[in-house]
Amino acid sequence: MKSNAVIAIHGGAGTILRASMSAQAEAQYRAALRDVLQAGQRILAEGGHALDAVTEAVRLLEDCPLFNAGRGSVFTADATHELDASIMDGRTLEAGAVCCVKRVRNPVLAARRVLECSEHVLFTGEGAEAFAAAQGLALVEPAYFHTDARYRQWQLAHDRQQTMLDHDGAARASLPSSESEAPEPTPQEPLDPNRKFGTVGAVALDAHGHLAAAASTGGITYKQPGRVGDTPLIGAGCYANDATCAVAATGAGEMFMRMVAAYDVSAQMAYRGATLEAATNDVVMNRLLRIEGRGGLIAVDREGNVALPFNTEGMYRGYARVGETCVTGIYR
Amino acid sequence: MKSNAVIAIHGGAGTILRASMSAQAEAQYRAALRDVLQAGQRILAEGGHALDAVTEAVRLLEDCPLFNAGRGSVFTADATHELDASIMDGRTLEAGAVCCVKRVRNPVLAARRVLECSEHVLFTGEGAEAFAAAQGLALVEPAYFHTDARYRQWQLAHDRQQTMLDHDGAARASLPSSESEAPEPTPQEPLDPNRKFGTVGAVALDAHGHLAAAASTGGITYKQPGRVGDTPLIGAGCYANDATCAVAATGAGEMFMRMVAAYDVSAQMAYRGATLEAATNDVVMNRLLRIEGRGGLIAVDREGNVALPFNTEGMYRGYARVGETCVTGIYR
Repeated sequence: MKSNAVIAIHGGAGTILRASMSAQAEAQYRAALRDVLQAGQRILAEGGHALDAVTEAVRLLEDCPLFNAGRGSVFTADATHELDASIMDGRTLEAGAVCCVKRVRNPVLAARRVLECSEHVLFTGEGAEAFAAAQGLALVEPAYFHTDARYRQWQLAHDRQQTMLDHDGAARASLPSSESEAPEPTPQEPLDPNRKFGTVGAVALDAHGHLAAAASTGGITYKQPGRVGDTPLIGAGCYANDATCAVAATGAGEMFMRMVAAYDVSAQMAYRGATLEAATNDVVMNRLLRIEGRGGLIAVDREGNVALPFNTEGMYRGYARVGETCVTGIYR
Repeated sequence: MKSNAVIAIHGGAGTILRASMSAQAEAQYRAALRDVLQAGQRILAEGGHALDAVTEAVRLLEDCPLFNAGRGSVFTADATHELDASIMDGRTLEAGAVCCVKRVRNPVLAARRVLECSEHVLFTGEGAEAFAAAQGLALVEPAYFHTDARYRQWQLAHDRQQTMLDHDGAARASLPSSESEAPEPTPQEPLDPNRKFGTVGAVALDAHGHLAAAASTGGITYKQPGRVGDTPLIGAGCYANDATCAVAATGAGEMFMRMVAAYDVSAQMAYRGATLEAATNDVVMNRLLRIEGRGGLIAVDREGNVALPFNTEGMYRGYARVGETCVTGIYR
């Protein structure tokens, strides 16, 4: 059976420079992306639903400590974790999301339950945790989310007493910063290659012609407690509609919220007949940059076209068509 | 000086039937709407900014116990209050919002401070309260939000053990319900005229050609703690862009979130050249109803056109042009 079924994923965008990445680290990231893609690909190859493929892909990305979502999430200023996730079904336009959860092992599974088992779309904080617990989802001690690498980032940020984007560095020096209140690192200070916009996401088209999108994040290192970015917000960080496309975004969340970035891709396709490529390029390369919004997004349309644009140095990304070899990328 | 400056406000949509409203109650609502409109009108007449006019209008609506925002907010299932608000400046596309706050006297003022004093757009829960406190905003004891009328609604809902929309009644019986999980009132039971979608909002165009929108709500009576609706979400319940329009929505929040309703009005204007009237009608009368999304919205465009469509029996609403008499409305 010939199918356009395809899944695309990302593991965050930012300053990811070839020069500062060891061959070993690169191989590790590529292998992780490939594993996740193959899991999604298997679901789609068996005639599974796009909604299931993106749920599973994001669950795996949450469980992988390399990426800033679930285990491996960055720390807030209070050295805690606050996680956000969302999911949308392009077939029904149903959606579910949670934000600011501290003990839900897999926020994307909580978002999925909100979509399926609640009349609501978004739960925050303890109410979201109570909902997840009532749904029988795994809650964990906050220590579960701790990784030494992220804790070192927190310590660094704590020493600097500033908001630090979790892997970003050079971009901050070379582009006008959206966090202009935060003091810039002194020019003498070596730029931190570990700073990027950490989010994970997945979009998929299944063999039945349905689209879905999911996203999850630990936010930004040393963020103020309670800050919510674009990831759990339908239309900002995540959107899916069988009539147009599925989109998951990663980047300076506030700019994606102000631009209603994920939905804007769909609106450009629906209302002015833009192609997926044209619409995603306009959002990432024009509209977001106009307000200094750095990041990228992954998108797939109902014909199986895939677009993975980003305006940063790199974005962990990949896609896999049913019956074909996975494609992964990191740098430009 | 001839100016198109105008402000429009709403105090919620739902089943507001002429037959079930006393002359005294109607006069009270109309007077409250007029007072708020005149306050906004004064700001605009003096050359003030749209952002200030909508902030002040929503602040007054929050302080008025007749409306479900600030004082007079509905109670959650736990008999607490959880308030949401947002604001957006069409000139800069800057935005601010808070959700799930329990002690901030005027959530719209917290949203305004997020817009002005934070690099972020949305804060939730205790983090939002800590931000508001750090900004010197008034925090109150939860008892401040208590009104006897809302508490009686909570008791009624508690007895029914069901989610109840805060003023809605007949619409629920006559239209397909979006809350199909909740048991319907038995036909013998008198329909509750006090049930509506309670939100407040304001949109304005100032003499300088700038647009702004703001929204605030106490949510829905007997809602599950942690539920967040469209009101604090940029693009869903609130949106402003000098290039197109300013929009504030009220209704079944989840449907507005799934439709990215407020931003959709702007997108239709920007991408397919729709007029404000055509775009708002399409969103309220077509797109929202397709997923059983009941409610309405208020909108103003950069030429000063005003649209106040709703698909429910009524919507507390009004608008005021500089130098003209206020216009208020309740029923169809």
